[in-house]
Amino acid sequence: MTINGDMIIGRRVVRGSAGSVQSYDPARGVALEPAFGGASAEQLAQACELAEGAFDAYRAIGLEQRARFLETIAERIMEIGPALIERAGQESGLPAARLEGERGRTVNQLRLFAKVVRDGRFLDATLDSALPERTPPRPDLRMRKIPLGPVAVFGASNFPLAFSVAGGDTASALAAGCPVVVKAHNAHLGTSELVARAVHQAALDCDMPEGVFSMVVGEGNQIGQDLVSHPAIRAVGFTGSRQGGLALVRIANGREEPIPVYAEMSSINPLFLLPGALKAGGAKLASGFVDSLTLGVGQFCTNPGLVIGLAGPDLDAFRAATVEALQLKTAGTMLTAGIHQAYQSAVERRSGLSGVELVAHGSPEGKGCAARAAFYQCDAATYLATPALEEEIFGPTSVLVVCRDEAEVLAVARHLEGQLTATVHATEADHGIAGSLIPLLERKVGRILFNGFPTGVEVAYAMVHGGPYPATSDSRSTSVGATAIERFLRPVCYQDVPEGLLPQELRNENTLGVPRLVDGQLKLPA
Amino acid sequence: MTINGDMIIGRRVVRGSAGSVQSYDPARGVALEPAFGGASAEQLAQACELAEGAFDAYRAIGLEQRARFLETIAERIMEIGPALIERAGQESGLPAARLEGERGRTVNQLRLFAKVVRDGRFLDATLDSALPERTPPRPDLRMRKIPLGPVAVFGASNFPLAFSVAGGDTASALAAGCPVVVKAHNAHLGTSELVARAVHQAALDCDMPEGVFSMVVGEGNQIGQDLVSHPAIRAVGFTGSRQGGLALVRIANGREEPIPVYAEMSSINPLFLLPGALKAGGAKLASGFVDSLTLGVGQFCTNPGLVIGLAGPDLDAFRAATVEALQLKTAGTMLTAGIHQAYQSAVERRSGLSGVELVAHGSPEGKGCAARAAFYQCDAATYLATPALEEEIFGPTSVLVVCRDEAEVLAVARHLEGQLTATVHATEADHGIAGSLIPLLERKVGRILFNGFPTGVEVAYAMVHGGPYPATSDSRSTSVGATAIERFLRPVCYQDVPEGLLPQELRNENTLGVPRLVDGQLKLPA
Repeated sequence: MTINGDMIIGRRVVRGSAGSVQSYDPARGVALEPAFGGASAEQLAQACELAEGAFDAYRAIGLEQRARFLETIAERIMEIGPALIERAGQESGLPAARLEGERGRTVNQLRLFAKVVRDGRFLDATLDSALPERTPPRPDLRMRKIPLGPVAVFGASNFPLAFSVAGGDTASALAAGCPVVVKAHNAHLGTSELVARAVHQAALDCDMPEGVFSMVVGEGNQIGQDLVSHPAIRAVGFTGSRQGGLALVRIANGREEPIPVYAEMSSINPLFLLPGALKAGGAKLASGFVDSLTLGVGQFCTNPGLVIGLAGPDLDAFRAATVEALQLKTAGTMLTAGIHQAYQSAVERRSGLSGVELVAHGSPEGKGCAARAAFYQCDAATYLATPALEEEIFGPTSVLVVCRDEAEVLAVARHLEGQLTATVHATEADHGIAGSLIPLLERKVGRILFNGFPTGVEVAYAMVHGGPYPATSDSRSTSVGATAIERFLRPVCYQDVPEGLLPQELRNENTLGVPRLVDGQLKLPA
Repeated sequence: MTINGDMIIGRRVVRGSAGSVQSYDPARGVALEPAFGGASAEQLAQACELAEGAFDAYRAIGLEQRARFLETIAERIMEIGPALIERAGQESGLPAARLEGERGRTVNQLRLFAKVVRDGRFLDATLDSALPERTPPRPDLRMRKIPLGPVAVFGASNFPLAFSVAGGDTASALAAGCPVVVKAHNAHLGTSELVARAVHQAALDCDMPEGVFSMVVGEGNQIGQDLVSHPAIRAVGFTGSRQGGLALVRIANGREEPIPVYAEMSSINPLFLLPGALKAGGAKLASGFVDSLTLGVGQFCTNPGLVIGLAGPDLDAFRAATVEALQLKTAGTMLTAGIHQAYQSAVERRSGLSGVELVAHGSPEGKGCAARAAFYQCDAATYLATPALEEEIFGPTSVLVVCRDEAEVLAVARHLEGQLTATVHATEADHGIAGSLIPLLERKVGRILFNGFPTGVEVAYAMVHGGPYPATSDSRSTSVGATAIERFLRPVCYQDVPEGLLPQELRNENTLGVPRLVDGQLKLPA
């Protein structure tokens, strides 16, 4: 498959007619060929209108065919082969092994949603029998979830496959029955075209209605604003900065008909190191922490940017081991020159904060756009009084907050903004304070983890990659895992609708074999 | 129980110290004693802070105890006896039989949510087994829903019991584990105090943490704005006008940390009369329609404000029968003088619209604040070109849109804004056009009903009392029925959390007996 600098608008592979955009190789500092044409306002509107036009046909397609479409996308992505990994590596600076893992995750995600679609639980099929003898008579009531309509997806720079063109937002929206219009991330346009062509081919192979998937390209904020403003678009999936996410929320709220925005924005992912855990293995903790902190050059939404520990020799040992491990980490190439620049400035600002000490630097060696890891320290009073320490710095940097006592540990927990994750390192000896921490953390985060590191986000049924504001714009949702599909659904009730006009999943006979709640009792298919 | 003009703030029955508010008897046009004190800013803040203080204790209480609390509220409400019906009648102008029915619905709703709580399905307990042998190892992942936090509830004037102090929003929020701060509706302050005292007594009886329920009183918009702005408040339930709902949405979106607002706002609830149904029984249809239109003086969110039919002798017969039935309906007392005034002005404006003809008036006889029903007619072209006809007029008025052909019927359906309901009257002969209507209506409404009238809203598992904007501010939710609880929940994932620190419902042994999704398979309690 070649990269031509094209977009996908419905069934057509077309070149954008408004200006030109290029991706860059951050390691070599050069622009990558080819240049992409940007979507004109007409081209963008066409993608949205085709999505609207496809919606009723697409949502009417059977669950099995919808599941096959998702699986076919996964197959077509795998068929691109090494060219995809190579191009994604050039555009992101990420190593091949990481990108191969991410590709595996992307196709597994598509396959998980195929399973979710076939399973039919997401339909929430619910039947309440009529009670004609009651006064007043109770009507026959049935309910199911239907898709919201066309979804706009904004990919993230840091996961050019798993949170991009055919990533979690697209997979869950398509699974829900929503056509998707992707705005390609300018940092990985070639990767985007390759994946978009794979989706496009899968749509043709599976005989999907035209407009079920489009991908547009464009520089600047206008195209995103136009996409979210378009009346055909009914929901938005976004992963990126707080500023970017909030801008989309404002546009969506300002529409004549407001629409939901699922923006996954910023998080500093606190790590609580409790005394027993520090005592049992501070050095091992340090090595795990440094690996998590520098993984993917710290460019994870779940990067551990805050460490909280109780002052004492065990914390000192942890810090010493962290310093040692960190100094050995070479500086990695960041995703884009802009991200690199922002990281450098943020780290400089942090170094200038009163009461905040730079404890260790990673090795300065590295290629272009290389980010040196930076590890800071302050006391709890400083942390609580310094709002700048709550801001996410996207990259391999973290702050150790040294607490005098358990009360300070709990005060820091209470002070936290909303986060994607919080991690607790604890042995059984720590279960007292851990038990006090959990209810505090439940209110602040989407995922609480013990004795691990937050940077792995498993694609599973029980995963929550979400959390209270400002981690996301909607704490009631997750952007990873099976329940991500719920973001794009809404319930419709059918009262006394004749059997022949009911949707298949609500008819008397459960021919689709989906789980149903019948008069308050869950009935599973045989 | 006496009415003293008091509020409930935590465990205390207190008098508001900021100004004075009174309810009015709309039929007699007199102020009702006693005067209520309005909440000062301090009193309002205290209610919110007590709610926040109660939250962790309340959500930690076992499901059985939470269910008993809801049932005890129902008992205490019934124990108020005829005094409640009498006062609600004075304050709303609604007849005793209707209010007794509404009280029955209110306590049934509390009991349904008690069942929902005991059942535990709302927790969405989900367990994914660890796969330690996999590369990389998969952690143990468990998920449950937790409550959002304190909820602000704004009652509706038109249901002084079922959508007010202990109505659906309060019942579902308490069921979810959220403390509630109610802003009493000024139209029925005495009713509100009586019910609030019942909830207060139930909270004492069930040994609930102080602050689980408060009710404040106040005139003007400031108190509502302050309530929604208070940092302790994490979600809002509202039933009322579009203007009021959108004002709360704006406040909630403008907070430092935005919160969800579930506002049920405006709907004109189209009724499609298909040719077969008109032929089979236009006169019976007319009588059902007029009853639904004038029920509760047309003051239902689901009042049928729009009728669509195909021109011809059968529609003429329906119209003639409607005119006849409507002229016999006496004018009923509206809920408040303000609502009556707004109805009168709106009907006058409508009468002046070009192409819109007044077909029939109800009888002018009635007590104070009496609203004469008004039935209009226009053709489809006028309807499609007159945005004012899409606005809800709160009261007993409706417009018949006469279509020349099926294409015009479908064009009107496509043109609709979001609605709570759409109704189709059809015989088997109509199933062709009905089949074309359903996918259009699914995108516009929360509930589609056949051969009935929308004014009954059954409290059930499959009910959806919601719908796309502007029917509500959040089409993904319902404010009536068992799934209303979902509005006040969000998911939290627990990764490798030690068994002893896990919430009960996620431990290995399912001692609570709640349904759980285990490795993608639904497991029902034995």
